[in-house]
Amino acid sequence: MIHFDTDYMAGAHPEVMKRLVETNLEQTTGYGSDAYTQRAKEKIREACAQNEAAVYFLVGGTQTNATVIDGLLRHHEGVLATETAHINVHESGAIEATGHKVLTLPSHDGKIKAEEVDKYITDFYRDETYEHMVAPGMVYISHPTELGTLYTLDELEALSQVCRKAQIPLYMDGARLGYGLAAENTDVTLKDIARLCDVFYIGGTKVGALFGEAVVAPRAQQLPHFFPLVKQHGALLAKGRLLGIQFETLFTDGLYERIGAHAVRLALKLKKAFVEKGYKLPIDSPTNQQFVCLPNEEMDRLLSHATFELWGPRGETETMVRFVTSWATREEDVDAFIRLL
Amino acid sequence: MIHFDTDYMAGAHPEVMKRLVETNLEQTTGYGSDAYTQRAKEKIREACAQNEAAVYFLVGGTQTNATVIDGLLRHHEGVLATETAHINVHESGAIEATGHKVLTLPSHDGKIKAEEVDKYITDFYRDETYEHMVAPGMVYISHPTELGTLYTLDELEALSQVCRKAQIPLYMDGARLGYGLAAENTDVTLKDIARLCDVFYIGGTKVGALFGEAVVAPRAQQLPHFFPLVKQHGALLAKGRLLGIQFETLFTDGLYERIGAHAVRLALKLKKAFVEKGYKLPIDSPTNQQFVCLPNEEMDRLLSHATFELWGPRGETETMVRFVTSWATREEDVDAFIRLL
Amino acid sequence: MIHFDTDYMAGAHPEVMKRLVETNLEQTTGYGSDAYTQRAKEKIREACAQNEAAVYFLVGGTQTNATVIDGLLRHHEGVLATETAHINVHESGAIEATGHKVLTLPSHDGKIKAEEVDKYITDFYRDETYEHMVAPGMVYISHPTELGTLYTLDELEALSQVCRKAQIPLYMDGARLGYGLAAENTDVTLKDIARLCDVFYIGGTKVGALFGEAVVAPRAQQLPHFFPLVKQHGALLAKGRLLGIQFETLFTDGLYERIGAHAVRLALKLKKAFVEKGYKLPIDSPTNQQFVCLPNEEMDRLLSHATFELWGPRGETETMVRFVTSWATREEDVDAFIRLL
Amino acid sequence: MIHFDTDYMAGAHPEVMKRLVETNLEQTTGYGSDAYTQRAKEKIREACAQNEAAVYFLVGGTQTNATVIDGLLRHHEGVLATETAHINVHESGAIEATGHKVLTLPSHDGKIKAEEVDKYITDFYRDETYEHMVAPGMVYISHPTELGTLYTLDELEALSQVCRKAQIPLYMDGARLGYGLAAENTDVTLKDIARLCDVFYIGGTKVGALFGEAVVAPRAQQLPHFFPLVKQHGALLAKGRLLGIQFETLFTDGLYERIGAHAVRLALKLKKAFVEKGYKLPIDSPTNQQFVCLPNEEMDRLLSHATFELWGPRGETETMVRFVTSWATREEDVDAFIRLL
Repeated sequence: MIHFDTDYMAGAHPEVMKRLVETNLEQTTGYGSDAYTQRAKEKIREACAQNEAAVYFLVGGTQTNATVIDGLLRHHEGVLATETAHINVHESGAIEATGHKVLTLPSHDGKIKAEEVDKYITDFYRDETYEHMVAPGMVYISHPTELGTLYTLDELEALSQVCRKAQIPLYMDGARLGYGLAAENTDVTLKDIARLCDVFYIGGTKVGALFGEAVVAPRAQQLPHFFPLVKQHGALLAKGRLLGIQFETLFTDGLYERIGAHAVRLALKLKKAFVEKGYKLPIDSPTNQQFVCLPNEEMDRLLSHATFELWGPRGETETMVRFVTSWATREEDVDAFIRLL
Repeated sequence: MIHFDTDYMAGAHPEVMKRLVETNLEQTTGYGSDAYTQRAKEKIREACAQNEAAVYFLVGGTQTNATVIDGLLRHHEGVLATETAHINVHESGAIEATGHKVLTLPSHDGKIKAEEVDKYITDFYRDETYEHMVAPGMVYISHPTELGTLYTLDELEALSQVCRKAQIPLYMDGARLGYGLAAENTDVTLKDIARLCDVFYIGGTKVGALFGEAVVAPRAQQLPHFFPLVKQHGALLAKGRLLGIQFETLFTDGLYERIGAHAVRLALKLKKAFVEKGYKLPIDSPTNQQFVCLPNEEMDRLLSHATFELWGPRGETETMVRFVTSWATREEDVDAFIRLL
Repeated sequence: MIHFDTDYMAGAHPEVMKRLVETNLEQTTGYGSDAYTQRAKEKIREACAQNEAAVYFLVGGTQTNATVIDGLLRHHEGVLATETAHINVHESGAIEATGHKVLTLPSHDGKIKAEEVDKYITDFYRDETYEHMVAPGMVYISHPTELGTLYTLDELEALSQVCRKAQIPLYMDGARLGYGLAAENTDVTLKDIARLCDVFYIGGTKVGALFGEAVVAPRAQQLPHFFPLVKQHGALLAKGRLLGIQFETLFTDGLYERIGAHAVRLALKLKKAFVEKGYKLPIDSPTNQQFVCLPNEEMDRLLSHATFELWGPRGETETMVRFVTSWATREEDVDAFIRLL
Repeated sequence: MIHFDTDYMAGAHPEVMKRLVETNLEQTTGYGSDAYTQRAKEKIREACAQNEAAVYFLVGGTQTNATVIDGLLRHHEGVLATETAHINVHESGAIEATGHKVLTLPSHDGKIKAEEVDKYITDFYRDETYEHMVAPGMVYISHPTELGTLYTLDELEALSQVCRKAQIPLYMDGARLGYGLAAENTDVTLKDIARLCDVFYIGGTKVGALFGEAVVAPRAQQLPHFFPLVKQHGALLAKGRLLGIQFETLFTDGLYERIGAHAVRLALKLKKAFVEKGYKLPIDSPTNQQFVCLPNEEMDRLLSHATFELWGPRGETETMVRFVTSWATREEDVDAFIRLL
């Protein structure tokens, strides 16, 4: 059986695992006060070209989103996001559990538009009853989005400008950031993100780590008193060095880039095959998630050879499905699958 | 100047005020443990034909919604409501502040449809990832709605059935209930509401009281430990008897009905005049809120004689506005205003 | 039966009630945007000698404490208070419900000591694990305290100094402030409080109003975005003018002072009688709450003529009880009661 | 340098690490739906002699405490614990952040007394104002406690009885449970705990795992809808199998017991040495944490050879310090350290 369900089906990239084994019996102090963690932070600051950035390591994505958003918003504020945003759909109300509303805007292939954010904010303060409403207090985007799509540099610049004009932070969920940075025609670099976002996180769980996400705040004062907040959210790992070791490894010798490039290359190989076979692609994704509409008969036949997710309910005659590659996807499996098409 | 802005511009109905004055120097115990409050509860139980109902008195609407919804939902649950619902738009995130998401459905003239609720719940549990999503834990409706419209008895029966099938409570926000019950062609009575809803509140603030809302749970166990929850929400009035006295008065000699009938009659007089003058009515409201589209020039002229709210932003050539009557609206003012049209 | 249970057993002071009746049929805009509310704010600013103060009117004490404390604290902070503080004991966890811990210090006749606050803060930051602990983020005091006692000006100056040194706000719960300001030998004035506290509230519910508390922040920026927070807490009264009218009346022609003086004079008359009859006074209170230890037999006899609260459980042979006077207490009742001793 | 700071300074026990490496490239479904997790649950149910128990795996201790306590309490309830409890001191207010108060009782060497719990509950409901207070809704204990001490079976039976009489759950924080079960003279077994507690967790982070805690509810209905709550708390690990693999290994061939026995044996060797050298032991701990009072001069000398924590501030002439052993502590290091005494 070949697996294309998600990008968190295997453990850690072998180089990451090797370092965890090598350091396993060392004794270090806890909660990220160790030297591995300090070095990992340095490497991330360097990769972002942000020497003064605050960097924090948390364990998982929902936890990271809830803690960061809680840290950025004031009581009466909510977070602007697309309807399809992970925080709006698949986090079991974690954002609301911290007391904040998710304010939704339409999804454009998973993306939010700068001009719609701008209009929302303008209209909000024009409404005479605005003090009875939840104020737009920050913008949440993900890159790649839930649908594998990417912002262009122009789009990101525009969003950043709208946010800075409104004096609210722009936050990027980078759960799959490695696969976004490695996309072929993207003009967005990690340094651009660090320059244009107020806070973002570099995903580890889906990009080579056993677990772990690196929160980056280029201007550290954007996240004041963040350490106790991480603890309060139950997001502080006792053996913090496990996060430091993993991110140090990922940001050494270009491993994070290599992982991204591998997965994207195989995803595009799949995409090319789908197109050549005449399948409909409902989303034009340049990253490691590929969406395709399959006739139900064909889908059922393929499901006997491979695993992949139905994206929404099974249709009457055809169904939208998702194929995901990762650092762990083997080229021979992709090739074997393509032969089945 | 004639006022049609809202239904909470004056103090209390004179009969209510009279009772507050008569009892002012009496000394009673606090927090609703007095005899007035007990009698008010009895009268409400009787009006609802629910002898075993639990009745609680709170001060205002947002407070009541937040406390009741917090009391009804479990952690992982949200409340289904229309996009235009008061709890979704005009309560400054009070629901989210208690940790719960408002799950929105389309507004049909301010109303939610039973079949859409049913489909939402069915689709939810069909989604394989539903345990990562906020579960629909109750349904919120208001009667009249934000747009002055009313549910029919059939619609209410259908909503009740859907909720009972799904084993989730149906909650009615009755901030303007008196004006709904007094509508001409409504087939929904207070007893129907008490039979079909699991919890509802009878609005006082907008219907003759200085302030106050009466929460009714026909089956008391639906709101276990509600007293300390009311206290925790800061919604427990020290001089609880003020609420008891007001509701006892409102439910004596048909005052609540008389107040409703007066306001609705004057609202319909306005409506008839608008129609006769050829104005467009975007909403066909049978209650004390009337919506009309006015050419801007006409609107500006009328605003020099009367106050009323723009419903949304000023349009390019015409604007939707709202006229509200209450127990305090005088017929001579309505007549004078009609002459201005 | 003569009542000494609490100071919220009657309605409003007749002058307040008179104004509510006189203005009852006026139509004004809601939520405190009316002229009465503006005038009440002006009068309070004047009484406090703080021209720039922000003033907000809320309905009740627990609600006010929860909203203010939520507005003052950051996520990782708690509020320092005595073990016996109202917020720690009798608010059904309203503070914790907003996500914050009450950090307790010993009670010295209901008061907190500046040096103990100072030591707590110093020790906290000396603890190497302090980032895993709830930081002391503000100080809560009440004046009078739960036990009727008062801070001296020196004590208040010291507390203010400690707080300013630590850069955390000092907040005073003034539920019974009128009875504190009217105490015979107090050297603390309203202007002192406004000078030394960062936020405080002037109690109306227990001091002549039907309900209502006036929150004062001499430096308005201490409570940024407080209006939507009040709304979010369900603490915004629709007919806000009711609060404005009441506080305008209380702060006109010295009514607030007269109410305080009346209640305190009668309380001290009671106290003198208790002392003369040889009863033990466990607390030396100069305000409208008097505590006395009564032999159980004597207590039972008095309870057949008057109502008053047992302070804690009934003792084996004697019991501590509380007598409270208010603006509504009549001298002839006090005299009649004294004759019963 | 020899390390006795804490029991989470090294990675995972080599047998655990070996299994993580062996399974690293396997592809499994996420969120604990894999076969490893199912087998780990089975092994834990067996070890607890509770075939119907619900078992959940979370990542860390604070997270586990906050999620479980949030799941067990109703809005108006708090959790009873000793003043020194981890949830009261060292979790950055994580419990309060979920809206609940920690109600404190005196610490008896880190333990709570059944009779004091009983008295608290009895007194609470005798207080006429109890509906204005936070109700005792559950009891939290840890075993071993923060001070390394253990409950006897009699003490645990008594606590369980008091809780069942009051119909509130008894919850045990077992962060160091393995070291408690391995203590020499303890008469408490894992089966006893499963019989007497309503919910408890078996600590992995400090007892051989890289991270991970296993929550056990012998009667599954005690934690209804716990999966989405775990997700909402950000405590759901994407690669859930990592927890399954680790706990399966810990509960195979008695590894969990062997780890406990090893650490306790070395801790008692240290203890014996301290006693023989005439040092004062402020706490008589039978587990892997040993407390000793050292003259400052002696402490400073030892700190140049080994690391260990000062327990509270440095004293004037002597200081209380803590030595902790774990599965990772080597006997030769203990022997070398003893020679230094």
